[in-house]
Amino acid sequence: MTDGPDKKPLRSAAWFGRQDKMGFYYRSFLKNRGFPQDQFEGRPVIGICNTWSELNPCNSHFRTIAEHVRWGVLDAGGFPLEFPVSSLGEVTMRPTAMLYRNLAAMDVEEAIRAHPLDGVVLLMGCDKTTPALMMGAASADLPAIGVSGGPQLRGVYRGQIIGSGTNIISMSEQLRAGEITIDEFHEAEAGMNRSSGHCMTMGTASTMASMVEALGFGLPENAAIPATDARRNHLARMAGRRIVEMVGEDLTPSKILTRPAFENAIRALAAIGGSTNAVVHLLAIARRVGVDLTLDDFDRFGRAVHCLVDLMPSGRFLMEDFYYAGGLPVVLKTLAERDLLHRDALTVNGRSIWENVAGATCWNAR
Amino acid sequence: MTDGPDKKPLRSAAWFGRQDKMGFYYRSFLKNRGFPQDQFEGRPVIGICNTWSELNPCNSHFRTIAEHVRWGVLDAGGFPLEFPVSSLGEVTMRPTAMLYRNLAAMDVEEAIRAHPLDGVVLLMGCDKTTPALMMGAASADLPAIGVSGGPQLRGVYRGQIIGSGTNIISMSEQLRAGEITIDEFHEAEAGMNRSSGHCMTMGTASTMASMVEALGFGLPENAAIPATDARRNHLARMAGRRIVEMVGEDLTPSKILTRPAFENAIRALAAIGGSTNAVVHLLAIARRVGVDLTLDDFDRFGRAVHCLVDLMPSGRFLMEDFYYAGGLPVVLKTLAERDLLHRDALTVNGRSIWENVAGATCWNAR
Amino acid sequence: MTDGPDKKPLRSAAWFGRQDKMGFYYRSFLKNRGFPQDQFEGRPVIGICNTWSELNPCNSHFRTIAEHVRWGVLDAGGFPLEFPVSSLGEVTMRPTAMLYRNLAAMDVEEAIRAHPLDGVVLLMGCDKTTPALMMGAASADLPAIGVSGGPQLRGVYRGQIIGSGTNIISMSEQLRAGEITIDEFHEAEAGMNRSSGHCMTMGTASTMASMVEALGFGLPENAAIPATDARRNHLARMAGRRIVEMVGEDLTPSKILTRPAFENAIRALAAIGGSTNAVVHLLAIARRVGVDLTLDDFDRFGRAVHCLVDLMPSGRFLMEDFYYAGGLPVVLKTLAERDLLHRDALTVNGRSIWENVAGATCWNAR
Amino acid sequence: MTDGPDKKPLRSAAWFGRQDKMGFYYRSFLKNRGFPQDQFEGRPVIGICNTWSELNPCNSHFRTIAEHVRWGVLDAGGFPLEFPVSSLGEVTMRPTAMLYRNLAAMDVEEAIRAHPLDGVVLLMGCDKTTPALMMGAASADLPAIGVSGGPQLRGVYRGQIIGSGTNIISMSEQLRAGEITIDEFHEAEAGMNRSSGHCMTMGTASTMASMVEALGFGLPENAAIPATDARRNHLARMAGRRIVEMVGEDLTPSKILTRPAFENAIRALAAIGGSTNAVVHLLAIARRVGVDLTLDDFDRFGRAVHCLVDLMPSGRFLMEDFYYAGGLPVVLKTLAERDLLHRDALTVNGRSIWENVAGATCWNAR
Repeated sequence: MTDGPDKKPLRSAAWFGRQDKMGFYYRSFLKNRGFPQDQFEGRPVIGICNTWSELNPCNSHFRTIAEHVRWGVLDAGGFPLEFPVSSLGEVTMRPTAMLYRNLAAMDVEEAIRAHPLDGVVLLMGCDKTTPALMMGAASADLPAIGVSGGPQLRGVYRGQIIGSGTNIISMSEQLRAGEITIDEFHEAEAGMNRSSGHCMTMGTASTMASMVEALGFGLPENAAIPATDARRNHLARMAGRRIVEMVGEDLTPSKILTRPAFENAIRALAAIGGSTNAVVHLLAIARRVGVDLTLDDFDRFGRAVHCLVDLMPSGRFLMEDFYYAGGLPVVLKTLAERDLLHRDALTVNGRSIWENVAGATCWNAR
Repeated sequence: MTDGPDKKPLRSAAWFGRQDKMGFYYRSFLKNRGFPQDQFEGRPVIGICNTWSELNPCNSHFRTIAEHVRWGVLDAGGFPLEFPVSSLGEVTMRPTAMLYRNLAAMDVEEAIRAHPLDGVVLLMGCDKTTPALMMGAASADLPAIGVSGGPQLRGVYRGQIIGSGTNIISMSEQLRAGEITIDEFHEAEAGMNRSSGHCMTMGTASTMASMVEALGFGLPENAAIPATDARRNHLARMAGRRIVEMVGEDLTPSKILTRPAFENAIRALAAIGGSTNAVVHLLAIARRVGVDLTLDDFDRFGRAVHCLVDLMPSGRFLMEDFYYAGGLPVVLKTLAERDLLHRDALTVNGRSIWENVAGATCWNAR
Repeated sequence: MTDGPDKKPLRSAAWFGRQDKMGFYYRSFLKNRGFPQDQFEGRPVIGICNTWSELNPCNSHFRTIAEHVRWGVLDAGGFPLEFPVSSLGEVTMRPTAMLYRNLAAMDVEEAIRAHPLDGVVLLMGCDKTTPALMMGAASADLPAIGVSGGPQLRGVYRGQIIGSGTNIISMSEQLRAGEITIDEFHEAEAGMNRSSGHCMTMGTASTMASMVEALGFGLPENAAIPATDARRNHLARMAGRRIVEMVGEDLTPSKILTRPAFENAIRALAAIGGSTNAVVHLLAIARRVGVDLTLDDFDRFGRAVHCLVDLMPSGRFLMEDFYYAGGLPVVLKTLAERDLLHRDALTVNGRSIWENVAGATCWNAR
Repeated sequence: MTDGPDKKPLRSAAWFGRQDKMGFYYRSFLKNRGFPQDQFEGRPVIGICNTWSELNPCNSHFRTIAEHVRWGVLDAGGFPLEFPVSSLGEVTMRPTAMLYRNLAAMDVEEAIRAHPLDGVVLLMGCDKTTPALMMGAASADLPAIGVSGGPQLRGVYRGQIIGSGTNIISMSEQLRAGEITIDEFHEAEAGMNRSSGHCMTMGTASTMASMVEALGFGLPENAAIPATDARRNHLARMAGRRIVEMVGEDLTPSKILTRPAFENAIRALAAIGGSTNAVVHLLAIARRVGVDLTLDDFDRFGRAVHCLVDLMPSGRFLMEDFYYAGGLPVVLKTLAERDLLHRDALTVNGRSIWENVAGATCWNAR
């Protein structure tokens, strides 16, 4: 827990390591919940940046995820403190959450900079929350790890599996034509989005969660574990443990989000048939870390890559199926085997992306 | 619950009242937590704007307050949805939370505008959160009501009552001089801020909570009930009930935050010996509603007013004592009796400020 | 909210309706959380009997379910108060939770009797919790409604669907034979029980949840909605609304748990190929309400019934599949069509069991 | 974390340390929330025995206390699992919670015995919950530590400080005589019990919390810290850390609850002017650990002891004041200085009771 002679002192020590008037002030207020003094004596202070909101249904289970992150931080001897930022829900905001992505990124960056944090875990779900948090964290450049909230279960209505979004247009036409009743229309709404999590097609949310994993900014399997599968909580806890180590290693976003990492992401984007919105977001993230990424790069690196998955909206399956089949690690491994992956790109767990995916198995090759 | 022929349709109906593709989309995602269809059929949608954060210890009990607001909204037949905004904690942010007040106000305004809300309850505590939320809500100008989180209990250390801040300097000098040990110093930290709530002197947080009440933007007694006194929860629940009515009455901030209300606030500020930071914040709030308030107004209206309370930092007592003695209603009543209050200024409960305070009693006149 | 001249006064009025010393006492303590006075003035007081426990993983999501029940009670103008009882988890208790069923039933009965309750919602999951709560509630005979917590999602390990329990023996043999590693063994554990909820085979938990529905003691679809499907929360909220009405109707367990209801349950038990443990539990419940049920009745009424479902452990599918296919309403409807159901047995929603299931559709007849 | 060669194996290993069919079963179900495999590999499993209930308002803040205990267990490398037991609230149960004390004790004992626990933290508040949990834990005799929930803040009504209970009779007389209105009566209810916690006079709840401390079964200061004072949470966290060590030391209740400890408790009871109900409870607890305590012992050991505090109902002050003045450690120290304390009685923190109180200071000798 103590800083050895060769260790960089903790950033938070500028608040909590002082034995003067201001040290008293900072510690005293935080003690209003009963935190012991030893929390302020050399433990890495880990922010849990939460986009939980009831107005953002895709992120409405994030209080539970935050608890698992918290337990992981405690496991590792850190001092976890959860904080909220603007939560952008594409599915409730008008005209579009895109208008607020940069505002939210500013919110994230300033929150990280202004507070006594040594590292941060970013909880991300509905599509704009992912780039907003990554952009803010990249600019602040403290050790950071991404944890996605996971996709919803497959939609089910009257025995049929449906993807979020896919059947809406046809059903509203049927309603207009009097082929279904208004009650059936409303019942279908309850069947389409029927669990915690974000869209379970390969829409922008799932795409961005895949980008987090492909960039090495999240732990392996970050993209596809359903929100309601316990292994999502497990991943959150492991992220909480890992961030404490990352603080010791000073493993900052700028060391992860390198040009090779972005090239890997571009190829993964093509391989999963991901949303084109990812282009806009990856460019913005790259700019935050000074990587000179352009639209041409998407052509150049994505061109040779075949789509390896069969997911809605273009294909047949849903994120839940993708997880059971092996998820993104299988995609990344396949890319590597075709020489389409920078194998030594560093990831947040301290291993290369190739080390992370080399053992992946596809359980459902079709 | 239904809109009568003479009623303005609910703003949220632009999202939830549609029986088309987009109506399906908006409702369906929110149904991913099991909300019944009737929640979308004419119930006022009430946002609970929460500044809960573990990095802002003064607001760290706000999840409980939000629950009481939620129950009040349900009591009244509304549809409550809690959402987070940036939370500014003066006691942990460096160099100062003041730098982020306007950013947070923007966050609040955009969150209100972009979402399917008909009214909003604002949970405010540490000092900058109060003007930030009021500014944002004033600009959005949907029906809104302020709920402050309440002051901490008196600090107690070694049998002595201490105010937040007041003894820090002397103790850090004592530590330097070797008159107290480092363990005693740390123990005093745990005694000074020893409960939920914000500073319990008449610092900026208590001052701004008083301004909320003096402006008529919060319910009577909003300023002084300690955070840990159950009547704080009671007030929150009543606010939750009241906001639903306010939506029906279209009682927006611009109808409350009038010039007479600000003049009342200025006089109340003088009467409580409030923090001068309130000047900066009141001017900013006024500007949001188009009230032409200037520094001169503070001289003009505050000049004749005597300080009616005896609270730290300038006096002897703390917010807890102020509450037991009758709180701000007694101050406002006294001002009115001296012809220093616009008695008919409208407040959020639909009554004039005079109606609210006429029955107040001072239990501890000294 | 008020008791009309023809209404039985509320049982809770013996506590809260008094304007004397004891009335002060009872109300005052409950006001320590800020409950408004009107909560004590004629609102039905609804207990939410919760078997949440982290030592009972099948019921570990019950705090969320309790919230939805609470919101339903508030929707209907009741006063919800959650309370815990012993939680029996077959999957952690040694030698078996069966030893404690009657103790827990006593706990439930006494808790209901001793407290100021007018009605109660029973949250039940892991198998012994269902009979324990029903037995206790039946003895107390206040209006009561059962809400089951729902089955887990299908287990998934290495692309294969597995049922809780089914693959354990084979895997432990494989481990012993050195065919799988200890890490694979542990990984399979995380895949078998991978979500909130109880066993998702037609084991005792699912069987008893089906009995709740077949007896008319729970709402339609109570048996099969997965724990993580939002419609489980929806059902909980509807139960919270409904119990308030049931108090007004004085609809007590003894009016639901009649001999015809038990005969329906026995036939449903046969039709779903349910666990034989249900026999023991149904007999115990029947005894609590004075229905003279014997082992012979199980022979007599179950004999002619064919198993209508194809669920593990005897069949191929899991509770999740059963839900998508139409769930227990389809089974009950089929029984009725074969003249194997007492159609007019009253259920907790005030309708007969036939009214509840007549519109059911099988979406997956095989 | 691993068991050294000289260590007694963990009791929980009989569940979780098995690499067979049953080991798979036990671990697998608990993994349904995402617990990592390492939780099952030698970490002491700590039960948090919670009497939280909304029907027991004195214990209604216990979910927060449980969180702090949990964090303490995690700090120390344990595996915390919270579980509920019957919660007995004297202030809502009729005819009296006393009828259920032994039933609750049985519930506690069986829950501890049947589950995979190595140690347990007991959360106790309203008066009967304290003996019930101690009795059950004493019979099970696994390492256990008591954490009381703390007294309420002083009651305040119309500027006057009031104790729970003390003013009820006079006010109900005043109401009958028409001297106060029914609204004032109801308002006083909200002022008397106005915060989390149990009765703040030296009634049975405060007395039993003092007995926990005097017996050495809780940490120093357990008796008097108000429920809403952050140091209550601090004490809970320390208890969570400590129980993990106690498992390693095999420090069971039978080693703490010795005859000298009971003699200390009897003298402390006299010194605080505690409730005579403590006699009944101490006898029952003693019997559970085979200590031959009789009514005569109360005469013999209590006789020479002067009442050292001035608390309601017999005196003037309340538990909050007692805490500020130094609390029970000062009382115990004074007893020791008068040779009325067995100084070497072992306490749960591994130190003798004298070591715990020798440094206590009275801040308010009157």
